[in-house]
Amino acid sequence: MRPIPPPAAAQSRLEHDLLGDREVPAEAYYGVHTLRALENFHISGVPIAIYPELIRALAQIKLAAARTNHLLGLLDEPRCRAIVAACEEVMEGRWHEHFVVDVIQGGAGTSTNMNANEVIANRALELMGHSRGQYAHLHPNEHVNMSQSTNDVYPTALRLATHAGITSLVQALGYLRQSFERKAEEFADVLKMGRTQLQDAVPMTLGQEFSTYAVMLGEDEARLQEAAALLCEINLGATAIGTGINAHPDYAAGVCRELARVSKVPVVTAPNLIEATQDCGGFVQLSGVLKRVAVKLSKVCNDLRLLSSGPRAGLGEINLPARQAGSSIMPGKVNPVIPEVVNQVAFEVIGNDMTVTFAAEAGQLQLNAFEPIIAHSLFKSVLHLRRAAYTLADLCVDGITANPERLRHSVEQSIGIVTALNPYIGYAAATEVAALAHRSGRGVKDIVLEMGLMSEQQLAEVLRPEVLTAPQRWPVKVTRP
Amino acid sequence: MRPIPPPAAAQSRLEHDLLGDREVPAEAYYGVHTLRALENFHISGVPIAIYPELIRALAQIKLAAARTNHLLGLLDEPRCRAIVAACEEVMEGRWHEHFVVDVIQGGAGTSTNMNANEVIANRALELMGHSRGQYAHLHPNEHVNMSQSTNDVYPTALRLATHAGITSLVQALGYLRQSFERKAEEFADVLKMGRTQLQDAVPMTLGQEFSTYAVMLGEDEARLQEAAALLCEINLGATAIGTGINAHPDYAAGVCRELARVSKVPVVTAPNLIEATQDCGGFVQLSGVLKRVAVKLSKVCNDLRLLSSGPRAGLGEINLPARQAGSSIMPGKVNPVIPEVVNQVAFEVIGNDMTVTFAAEAGQLQLNAFEPIIAHSLFKSVLHLRRAAYTLADLCVDGITANPERLRHSVEQSIGIVTALNPYIGYAAATEVAALAHRSGRGVKDIVLEMGLMSEQQLAEVLRPEVLTAPQRWPVKVTRP
Amino acid sequence: MRPIPPPAAAQSRLEHDLLGDREVPAEAYYGVHTLRALENFHISGVPIAIYPELIRALAQIKLAAARTNHLLGLLDEPRCRAIVAACEEVMEGRWHEHFVVDVIQGGAGTSTNMNANEVIANRALELMGHSRGQYAHLHPNEHVNMSQSTNDVYPTALRLATHAGITSLVQALGYLRQSFERKAEEFADVLKMGRTQLQDAVPMTLGQEFSTYAVMLGEDEARLQEAAALLCEINLGATAIGTGINAHPDYAAGVCRELARVSKVPVVTAPNLIEATQDCGGFVQLSGVLKRVAVKLSKVCNDLRLLSSGPRAGLGEINLPARQAGSSIMPGKVNPVIPEVVNQVAFEVIGNDMTVTFAAEAGQLQLNAFEPIIAHSLFKSVLHLRRAAYTLADLCVDGITANPERLRHSVEQSIGIVTALNPYIGYAAATEVAALAHRSGRGVKDIVLEMGLMSEQQLAEVLRPEVLTAPQRWPVKVTRP
Amino acid sequence: MRPIPPPAAAQSRLEHDLLGDREVPAEAYYGVHTLRALENFHISGVPIAIYPELIRALAQIKLAAARTNHLLGLLDEPRCRAIVAACEEVMEGRWHEHFVVDVIQGGAGTSTNMNANEVIANRALELMGHSRGQYAHLHPNEHVNMSQSTNDVYPTALRLATHAGITSLVQALGYLRQSFERKAEEFADVLKMGRTQLQDAVPMTLGQEFSTYAVMLGEDEARLQEAAALLCEINLGATAIGTGINAHPDYAAGVCRELARVSKVPVVTAPNLIEATQDCGGFVQLSGVLKRVAVKLSKVCNDLRLLSSGPRAGLGEINLPARQAGSSIMPGKVNPVIPEVVNQVAFEVIGNDMTVTFAAEAGQLQLNAFEPIIAHSLFKSVLHLRRAAYTLADLCVDGITANPERLRHSVEQSIGIVTALNPYIGYAAATEVAALAHRSGRGVKDIVLEMGLMSEQQLAEVLRPEVLTAPQRWPVKVTRP
Repeated sequence: MRPIPPPAAAQSRLEHDLLGDREVPAEAYYGVHTLRALENFHISGVPIAIYPELIRALAQIKLAAARTNHLLGLLDEPRCRAIVAACEEVMEGRWHEHFVVDVIQGGAGTSTNMNANEVIANRALELMGHSRGQYAHLHPNEHVNMSQSTNDVYPTALRLATHAGITSLVQALGYLRQSFERKAEEFADVLKMGRTQLQDAVPMTLGQEFSTYAVMLGEDEARLQEAAALLCEINLGATAIGTGINAHPDYAAGVCRELARVSKVPVVTAPNLIEATQDCGGFVQLSGVLKRVAVKLSKVCNDLRLLSSGPRAGLGEINLPARQAGSSIMPGKVNPVIPEVVNQVAFEVIGNDMTVTFAAEAGQLQLNAFEPIIAHSLFKSVLHLRRAAYTLADLCVDGITANPERLRHSVEQSIGIVTALNPYIGYAAATEVAALAHRSGRGVKDIVLEMGLMSEQQLAEVLRPEVLTAPQRWPVKVTRP
Repeated sequence: MRPIPPPAAAQSRLEHDLLGDREVPAEAYYGVHTLRALENFHISGVPIAIYPELIRALAQIKLAAARTNHLLGLLDEPRCRAIVAACEEVMEGRWHEHFVVDVIQGGAGTSTNMNANEVIANRALELMGHSRGQYAHLHPNEHVNMSQSTNDVYPTALRLATHAGITSLVQALGYLRQSFERKAEEFADVLKMGRTQLQDAVPMTLGQEFSTYAVMLGEDEARLQEAAALLCEINLGATAIGTGINAHPDYAAGVCRELARVSKVPVVTAPNLIEATQDCGGFVQLSGVLKRVAVKLSKVCNDLRLLSSGPRAGLGEINLPARQAGSSIMPGKVNPVIPEVVNQVAFEVIGNDMTVTFAAEAGQLQLNAFEPIIAHSLFKSVLHLRRAAYTLADLCVDGITANPERLRHSVEQSIGIVTALNPYIGYAAATEVAALAHRSGRGVKDIVLEMGLMSEQQLAEVLRPEVLTAPQRWPVKVTRP
Repeated sequence: MRPIPPPAAAQSRLEHDLLGDREVPAEAYYGVHTLRALENFHISGVPIAIYPELIRALAQIKLAAARTNHLLGLLDEPRCRAIVAACEEVMEGRWHEHFVVDVIQGGAGTSTNMNANEVIANRALELMGHSRGQYAHLHPNEHVNMSQSTNDVYPTALRLATHAGITSLVQALGYLRQSFERKAEEFADVLKMGRTQLQDAVPMTLGQEFSTYAVMLGEDEARLQEAAALLCEINLGATAIGTGINAHPDYAAGVCRELARVSKVPVVTAPNLIEATQDCGGFVQLSGVLKRVAVKLSKVCNDLRLLSSGPRAGLGEINLPARQAGSSIMPGKVNPVIPEVVNQVAFEVIGNDMTVTFAAEAGQLQLNAFEPIIAHSLFKSVLHLRRAAYTLADLCVDGITANPERLRHSVEQSIGIVTALNPYIGYAAATEVAALAHRSGRGVKDIVLEMGLMSEQQLAEVLRPEVLTAPQRWPVKVTRP
Repeated sequence: MRPIPPPAAAQSRLEHDLLGDREVPAEAYYGVHTLRALENFHISGVPIAIYPELIRALAQIKLAAARTNHLLGLLDEPRCRAIVAACEEVMEGRWHEHFVVDVIQGGAGTSTNMNANEVIANRALELMGHSRGQYAHLHPNEHVNMSQSTNDVYPTALRLATHAGITSLVQALGYLRQSFERKAEEFADVLKMGRTQLQDAVPMTLGQEFSTYAVMLGEDEARLQEAAALLCEINLGATAIGTGINAHPDYAAGVCRELARVSKVPVVTAPNLIEATQDCGGFVQLSGVLKRVAVKLSKVCNDLRLLSSGPRAGLGEINLPARQAGSSIMPGKVNPVIPEVVNQVAFEVIGNDMTVTFAAEAGQLQLNAFEPIIAHSLFKSVLHLRRAAYTLADLCVDGITANPERLRHSVEQSIGIVTALNPYIGYAAATEVAALAHRSGRGVKDIVLEMGLMSEQQLAEVLRPEVLTAPQRWPVKVTRP
């Protein structure tokens, strides 16, 4: 059960690194650094290619760096052209299967960066007419990684990739929000009892209830966009620790400009590159906002499951669309499987936030070595939340129906409507009415009439739905008849 | 808003430490080390005296150490006698108000240990006829702390104190368990619908439902006792880092024996003192078990709140005793305030576990410097859980009543009873019956009879409560009539 | 060990509520609702008065409500005047000791709200010339709580109180930031090795290192202010569930205006009051930002402890001021007790965030019943972080000194300076130099000269501190001599 | 970006469920229930087949159930034989690729159970000479799932699968422990300074340091085995909610006996099946223990990274084997990538524990609907910890070397050795010596001699390594010369 090296290839080429010589499979676009990372990190078995936004972001950065280095006179035209062309191919998704290192890796992202450097170098070599591995012509470190370090490339790639992810997630939440908005409109006239602390409170409409879910989601969209904006601050030009060693003084500004152009993300260079290189605050913040989204989605799904409980021995206020048979033993049972899966995504996202928190706190001195697990956690959270939002909209919310008679009946027989009489008969008398109703099982109206507290006409006026569910200009206090 | 030093005392004595001379209030039993800790740690404002088990444990350890040192010929009789007497007074609670350092403190517990050393030394000095501060006669470090280090005293004190806390908590959970057991018996014959995924499932009795809560608590009691047993392994004799520097070779065994005698806890010396000195595994384990208790108490309270929802627009299966008026605006409203407060304790305990986890992971090399926050978190969790258990038993569970007619009615009108017919009519036919019942709003019995699947007599036999709520020897499959 | 009711008072008055008659101690300003809450909630033993911002906020709300009700013709002048006067006294801190309910309480804050209603009513009665308890003249619910519900008062009070707390916290972080800024300036010329992944990387200045801490804190201040801004959205006028039942249509706008005036916080009414009443998103967001602050403060303290490790067998780059003797057994030992206590506050805050997350997720339908533990957790986090920031600034950062010779020496003997030669000799040759230096224990300069890669003059030029610690315009690549 | 249904198959067969008719790809061994689950749950994109222990456990349960049903006269011989044969093939891994439902799924595991029922039924049909989908001959629910419910099958399968996982994990930790034990022996004579709170404390050996890691792991192995033992309590026979509806009275005992035989796990039937069906306490407990393992592995890796920091500007006490070039920009840099990846696994496991906690707390009434995410979290934690343990042993610990001269030098020049003089010169005098050493930069020995506190011979005696690193019988206190 020890980690297993990749199978020996039939054909191979020889590469060299700090540790010595090493055979690399001839057909591999990656090189010796990637190969060693494959041997070192056999944890999840999931390659970084599973996050295409990350691969794309790496290629965009390498492209922007090459162009900037060329403009600064540091990289000659043919090499620049080859690197740019290779990066464009990667951005189109042509070589993703060569991004093979494990999503959980040591080394602060060096293996991911070197995987990109090597694939791009080898593809560029081909485009220049050389064989893979002929690094004398174009070198993964000296040319593809020129003016760069893992420590500025990797965090910048994470920021671009999460930025793209957040943009998609905001769309998904908007899509779900609209589902709730349509239902809010559809149920605008369905009167029901509101509940606080699971106890009958005062009347509201089912439309009002559903509109709150839409409003919540709208707020989450806004918060996510704020968090995404914080991700636009990048540290390219920082190189190893933020002092910019090995980088030209004009490089940081230039590469930022190029990257904004190629990525269409309004990136800016962080004011203090040393701080920006070691800081994970933006990721912690984003993770906190994702947790907020999860908490609220989970609350919404808890409500949907509760309101649709039954069909006969539950609240039974709404019906979720049946999506599958609910039980291997109980015939006819249908379960709220879609809200349940969303709840579980929420629990996963909350756990991921804890992982991000631990990893961020563990950063030391000039770098956080644990960004790979931060990246993995954030990417998973964003992806699963996005899919959960579409799933909830399409497979659940859009098909929800109401049981209006049951809802209306629960208002009519409720004790909670006594609250509406406070302005007329006072809290103390209303308390007496409520207590009597509770003891006797009788209705509030009956008791108020019997006690002579209000007339039938007054009651009818006060207990109209539109009066119950919105603020009212109080009449002068009714003198008890 | 800066931390404020203790007010200058009218009278003072001069003490000396590594940092130089310092005036200490004349009436203080603590000394210069405690005074500096007071100035350094102004965070929670809560003194360690809030945890009397901790103070008692410290005194027990100092007493055991003094006796052992005396037996080994290292501490003379008069000093030993004075220290022992002072410790006994502390154990009786006489000087708790002099244990003043903040529960949240840096220094790995040194301030707590020195607070104990100083109070005991000064009280012992008095008993010997000297004035406080006359440390030439009896010194906090050289005599009270002889053969010890904070790094063995403090973890051992935490272990004793949490051991005592767990013992009380187990009693409280047992008390609550018995409340549930009484209710399980009381409700043994109340038939109701069981629910899975909030959807009507199959019948059970309310007594069965309540008995599960008792069983859960019983398991928690067992798990807590296992975790408490792990706490009995102490590291006295380890001194600074576990190598036992400054301690006599026979000291560890001797002090352990004495401590077992005085504390009545079956402490044993850890096999590897270096490991025991730096390890917080036992605390993490205990915290995990407390979290488990919290998770399950919270689940129970969620159920109680759900089952008692209403009174009219909820499930309304049981009634919690009214404990206070539930609303400042809604007359007659009564809320499940007791389960709610227990839920909140559970959430706090889960948060405390996270604090413990972080603090434990942050230990470095030969010591964990963050044990004070581990202690504070565990003590709070144990205390609040204990109070929550008594509160839940006395103020809620004992007064719960059932609504048997409503419950019986929900079984009779349910679709879920169709499951009981599986052995007779098969899952596929039962599914048809259920679907038809759901569409039409009709009862299962009617449909089965109408479809000629079973006779009235067969149905009556199968749907008896005692048949529905326990395994049955199946009859030969009924041939469809 | 059961919860203990408050001791019977010598003298008492009779009050009445939903549960019946009840003796209240004659001298109490609180009434029967508070008394029952005292009996129900005996968990932490800590009264809400420990959070004065909360009490002040409650009084501000009651004052604003009374004035608004009076303006709307709902509350007569004498009662309004008495309520306002009583509220002003509470705001000045005169009656805080009568706010006695436990910080951990069931009931969604009803007990806190009723505690405020009763204290204010009884004090107002006195001001009107009546005795406490004469509620016929001025009633806690009908007059002090007029147009309100716990469900709008309590969240609004939490928002005001946390807003005030955040403001103080931002000041404390600014104070700490300035300490770091002063040190950054003081250490601007102290050259040292930067480290990534705890391995020697490339040179930087100690001033650069300290400036990053200042920058981090500055960012946290900005994030906190954003989170505080989100807290300004209140739901007064929502009453029970957000429909505004029992409230005048002009009440919400009016009370918001009054509250902004009296509290000096720019509160606005939430656009959807039903959503605002049940939503805890703002608290989760704030808690997430507090967690971010904690994560970063903890990272800073980890660094300070690491950089000051030693004095002889550690990094020994900086010296923290000695604050107390560090050991009860090891003479002369001084520990980093101040960073250690800040680390522990950070761990507590992270745990509190988990509690907030759980409590927020547990909200159901129209209300979150668990806001009291959210409040308790947030208040603790804010308070402890504030005190930790001042403690860290005053008792640690301000007294930090550097060991410049040791630091300079570590740069000179490092292998890491080879990175600066990349542009001159290439990554591959530089790797050879580094490997040889590592194997032989020799210096980089020696080896470069011996291998004839650069001249002594070139090396001297490249290895100047100001060249090493900032981006450089690369010279044309040196032809290997 | 909506969930995408599986591609339409060229050929298909018609199946039927509660929702109606549905085409299933002809070549699929799964059926309509699985197909609907595929459409409903498109979250992680990862099929349950990724956890082979789970698939194997499901097959073992189905096999045991079939045999038991046959013995009870409920299932005829031919069907029993076919089901058993199909299950044996699944246990051998032949049909894993047909277990396709997403690891994150709603429905409390129903989809996983039905996936198993359908694959086994269809394979059994083939073995009986029928076509797939000919359920009249052998039905997924009526025969394969006979006497069962998802609610007893699924938790039992999780228990078996985690039990298997824990067994493997214990082996991996034992493997790692032995690596540390070998190093402890190898370094038994290497003297070094111990550290508490990152400050120099007292001497120890590097062997002592490494032995603590072995001891810690040994304790974790014991705790895991205890947690695994708790998993042996199963609830087969509970059926839907624990009342055993549809099950023969002798079924529970019989199936347990069969399952123990086929799985070789000493399973027992839980005493209260209703409790066992809804309870997730065992999973929470296990998750807590996994978190404990993670916390301690992370602490060990933190230590390894710290002790190997440098190579020149760090502690540099040990050398980790170089596994890959450490930097894309800094030549010759080697990073502690293996401990770093283990740290990240630990952070992930801690996050997973939070997910488990949330999911467990969310259980309601007679079932926890969120067991799929509990399973996914536990399986991931177990798998990644296991791989991390082997990785750490093989790729790091086994290759660690020490720098004995550097270590010895740090002891000789340390101030910490003054602690060893406490018994001879007293804590107060030793404090003076330490302070003077610190101020002057001089050595402890020099100062002690100069002050005439001890003779050179006495010092030589006291400062021998074997004296410094173990408890000592104190000599009579030396009279100051």
